[in-house]
Amino acid sequence: MVLLEFSMTPLGKGESVSPYVARSVEIISQSGLDYRLHAMGTVIEGEWDEVMAVVTKCYEAMSVDCDRVTCSVKIDARRGASGRLVSKVRSIEDKVAGDLKTSES
Amino acid sequence: MVLLEFSMTPLGKGESVSPYVARSVEIISQSGLDYRLHAMGTVIEGEWDEVMAVVTKCYEAMSVDCDRVTCSVKIDARRGASGRLVSKVRSIEDKVAGDLKTSES
Amino acid sequence: MVLLEFSMTPLGKGESVSPYVARSVEIISQSGLDYRLHAMGTVIEGEWDEVMAVVTKCYEAMSVDCDRVTCSVKIDARRGASGRLVSKVRSIEDKVAGDLKTSES
Amino acid sequence: MVLLEFSMTPLGKGESVSPYVARSVEIISQSGLDYRLHAMGTVIEGEWDEVMAVVTKCYEAMSVDCDRVTCSVKIDARRGASGRLVSKVRSIEDKVAGDLKTSES
Repeated sequence: MVLLEFSMTPLGKGESVSPYVARSVEIISQSGLDYRLHAMGTVIEGEWDEVMAVVTKCYEAMSVDCDRVTCSVKIDARRGASGRLVSKVRSIEDKVAGDLKTSES
Repeated sequence: MVLLEFSMTPLGKGESVSPYVARSVEIISQSGLDYRLHAMGTVIEGEWDEVMAVVTKCYEAMSVDCDRVTCSVKIDARRGASGRLVSKVRSIEDKVAGDLKTSES
Repeated sequence: MVLLEFSMTPLGKGESVSPYVARSVEIISQSGLDYRLHAMGTVIEGEWDEVMAVVTKCYEAMSVDCDRVTCSVKIDARRGASGRLVSKVRSIEDKVAGDLKTSES
Repeated sequence: MVLLEFSMTPLGKGESVSPYVARSVEIISQSGLDYRLHAMGTVIEGEWDEVMAVVTKCYEAMSVDCDRVTCSVKIDARRGASGRLVSKVRSIEDKVAGDLKTSES
């Protein structure tokens, strides 16, 4: 299974881009894949084709009204492992003394 | 203020690197900066020199016993704005119908 | 058109991963898309589906014998513009006094 | 020694940002470190403190007249190895049949 983290930003649409980011997050939240939104992007979990299809859908939506789109993607694919949105964080929490800050809201 | 997201991984230390990542998260959690850990990295908030000092400290610790260290960093620096670990997420939540998944644990 | 830069690395296959990277570069060089290899990755140019198909093909090849694959991707998509592998560099060269180091070999 | 690739972009300064990128490349070219400019960023080589100082100098220059600055950094640090701007590319060229496209200009 694949963990894919991405952020997608239009250039030329001003300093604040949250309306465009919100449209991408709407696509992600309706994709049916598990995900976590944080301050610098969103992590989604699924098979390779599933997660890439979500990134493509976000790009197609953003490029409708944005002439220049930048995107950064980070992928961690591991055979057989799923539920890693939580388990990767748990495995760190188990190894570090005290509570860690993992909740965004 | 600066939001900096990073992940740091040794190469040549096997497929599971969580013990090394846990050491970095320990340094982050003791840095005094606000941060959020998620499945693909950690986002920290502070002035430029503060956040870069944390990344440097993690590198210095990892390079003690790892001969090859890879690291990816994403920075969003915005004049005057702070508390963006939460406010950037809130600004998206306000623009998307329904609840969003933002909590890691 | 899209400029996509990526690097793909197996975890758990030792400190030196160039044999695996070379297999990806072979796929890229045979893709028919224009590209430039540099010390930290490869930049390819094409339509969104074309460049994503190359990344997918590299992942499929690497995941045959690697249980954990990490990948970072950076995308700069701009309506109408092509030939940007060279023109983006030229536009910087035109704005900076003196010769710049742009050739890898 | 460290290979560090980065790109730094202002948000809110329009769709074309090459004048700002050119200022960063000028700082890099005058830093005394070896570097290669390509279409998606610049790779520099040096000790950790040296390469981080260049990124910091570019940020300080850009933040003088840009209220929001985004930056992505990718680091590959390897004990003892230097001259990797060229040797990493050569090691791939040696493993792939035929000539590879590595020159930007």
